[in-house]
Amino acid sequence: MHRSRLSPGVRDEYITAMHDLDAVLAANESFYRAFAEADIAAMEALWAERSPVACIHPGWPPLTERADVIESWRRILANPGQDAPVCRAPEVLLFGDMALVLCFEEIGGQVLVASNYFVQEAGGWRLVHHQSGPVNEAPRPKRAPGPRSLH
Amino acid sequence: MHRSRLSPGVRDEYITAMHDLDAVLAANESFYRAFAEADIAAMEALWAERSPVACIHPGWPPLTERADVIESWRRILANPGQDAPVCRAPEVLLFGDMALVLCFEEIGGQVLVASNYFVQEAGGWRLVHHQSGPVNEAPRPKRAPGPRSLH
Repeated sequence: MHRSRLSPGVRDEYITAMHDLDAVLAANESFYRAFAEADIAAMEALWAERSPVACIHPGWPPLTERADVIESWRRILANPGQDAPVCRAPEVLLFGDMALVLCFEEIGGQVLVASNYFVQEAGGWRLVHHQSGPVNEAPRPKRAPGPRSLH
Repeated sequence: MHRSRLSPGVRDEYITAMHDLDAVLAANESFYRAFAEADIAAMEALWAERSPVACIHPGWPPLTERADVIESWRRILANPGQDAPVCRAPEVLLFGDMALVLCFEEIGGQVLVASNYFVQEAGGWRLVHHQSGPVNEAPRPKRAPGPRSLH
């Protein structure tokens, strides 16, 4: 077995990375679920409270105050013409207690590309930054993502 | 004096944050200088080596391998038709040993908005992620930026 050749320290690190990877992917899914279900309470709960936060919606200048970020989502989610997004091909990069999810967003026939940054806060992964913008290429099937870690 | 009312711990934290803020802004300036001067060696040196890295050029899908990121910059900087960027209105968010710079990029009459993520590596701040995309609003003059810190 390949795993038996890993030293205990490396194996523990790998297991922690896999655990973080799953938890970050779950937080990213929660973000798109809150968006798709127009659930402003869930959306607000996802954004970090102890860290600075920022958000760049497609075509918008950056929002860098939490109240402005939440208010922007409130307006977007209250818009009856807003299509629900589908998240495609998420890939996680781990940086210790921060993580980046890169993914595609299919929204009403458009494809966007997004960066979602999370920090560990109060035992969970919470959003500190989202940037989404147009992309000229649809997501392609990729190999199964493994964790890519700083450590 | 206002400063005399800060406890030594808070004052030290503030001084560290101001130091980090300056260092991150300098790293961000180095990035745009390398871009403007088409200096591929400087550009390559700016990207982290021990952390995962990613890059989303305007309209491109994400690049998530360091070699692909560097190669993309090599091609962009080798393009004689590539306009030099001017970075406007950078704003720094500090997350301990990571930092995010939000800024506008003026490139050949176009205005883009960018997120540049840095980590502390080998005593300096190095890029781990860049995403740039179109924005519908030009940068506006803002108040002088102060550090916004996780801690």
